[in-house]
Amino acid sequence: MSTNDLDQSAAELGMGGKLAPESDDAGYRKRMERRQQVQKQRVEERNKEKGLILVFTGQGKGKTTAGLGLVLRTLGHGERVAIVQFIKGGWEPGEARALKAFGDQVRWHALGEGFTWETQDRERDQQLVERAWQTALEYLRDGAVKLVLLDELNVALKLGYIDAATVIQGLKERPTLTHVAVTGRGAPAELVDAADLVTEMTLIHHPFREQGVKAQAGIEF
Amino acid sequence: MSTNDLDQSAAELGMGGKLAPESDDAGYRKRMERRQQVQKQRVEERNKEKGLILVFTGQGKGKTTAGLGLVLRTLGHGERVAIVQFIKGGWEPGEARALKAFGDQVRWHALGEGFTWETQDRERDQQLVERAWQTALEYLRDGAVKLVLLDELNVALKLGYIDAATVIQGLKERPTLTHVAVTGRGAPAELVDAADLVTEMTLIHHPFREQGVKAQAGIEF
Repeated sequence: MSTNDLDQSAAELGMGGKLAPESDDAGYRKRMERRQQVQKQRVEERNKEKGLILVFTGQGKGKTTAGLGLVLRTLGHGERVAIVQFIKGGWEPGEARALKAFGDQVRWHALGEGFTWETQDRERDQQLVERAWQTALEYLRDGAVKLVLLDELNVALKLGYIDAATVIQGLKERPTLTHVAVTGRGAPAELVDAADLVTEMTLIHHPFREQGVKAQAGIEF
Repeated sequence: MSTNDLDQSAAELGMGGKLAPESDDAGYRKRMERRQQVQKQRVEERNKEKGLILVFTGQGKGKTTAGLGLVLRTLGHGERVAIVQFIKGGWEPGEARALKAFGDQVRWHALGEGFTWETQDRERDQQLVERAWQTALEYLRDGAVKLVLLDELNVALKLGYIDAATVIQGLKERPTLTHVAVTGRGAPAELVDAADLVTEMTLIHHPFREQGVKAQAGIEF
């Protein structure tokens, strides 16, 4: 069966549980045996290793944290990670402190002066972004680094401090098995097209904004 | 100004960079000074601390990893974390190995027998979910735990192995400053209503599915 047929077959068989129509145990077991077989074939069918470009964008929460989750997983597999945070301020976020537990396995850099309304100086911003990008390029080219997280790079792109063609060219310079994750609102169409996986985080319910709840440690930083 | 007026004012002033209309430095600085003031007021306006219910749902990638990013941040602030993975298989994912670096600061549990098509037994699944939920409840009630991550609980809800009313009642039993994050596709409407923040991860581009790329360490597990 082709990959698409396998996907369709998996969808038809379903995830089981109380969603499955069978009321008897034997019928249910049979359905799940078929599902297990399809799953095995799906795994066999997908056998290529490839360094991926992953983009997390959209207005919702969870973009940077999704990138950090990939960092954690990669560290768990004993691989090296580099993080460049493009728009973050001068403070040290929780993630930077936590990552110290991994010593040299992870390298962390922040651009350092915060958002545009803190510098109030476009030229300064542009220089900072360019410097951060040069740091990013070094890690992208370094085969010993398995995952490069370019946090909020989409925002730097959106604000016009770096252009999409430069970024895409840089991403192409990485070794074939290196993963890169790019986060931030407003990913440009060129980057979406170049990516292997794009997730849009959509805000569907946010009552705490109206409740006057402040940015809290562990959640926002 | 009200919170909404401040938000609108921030949106009107914009994020700066090359999106700002001013071509002169003085005009730009003035805009960004106003933006900085609005930002300061926004921060002052939102001054409440509150334990949040965060839900990451949808078909896209990044739900579990977003939860793991919150875990990392919370650990960085020196707080304790508990993780209960409801649908994961018997293997040890990258995150579990990485979290060992934090010793007793983090507790990790997996239900242990994998997806429904691996057990092929609804009663067994239900028992496993109930056991995992009891573990979750202990952490939710423990004031020493700052963040409880209930990974893939939405899937257990969707498959009918636990009901939304039970979950929401359990979430209410936690101390007022405890955060809880619930991940997985298909979050039920009752949980969405009870949450302080819901993000839907939407898949907008996924060519690597068609490229036959396998589940890779650091990305999928």
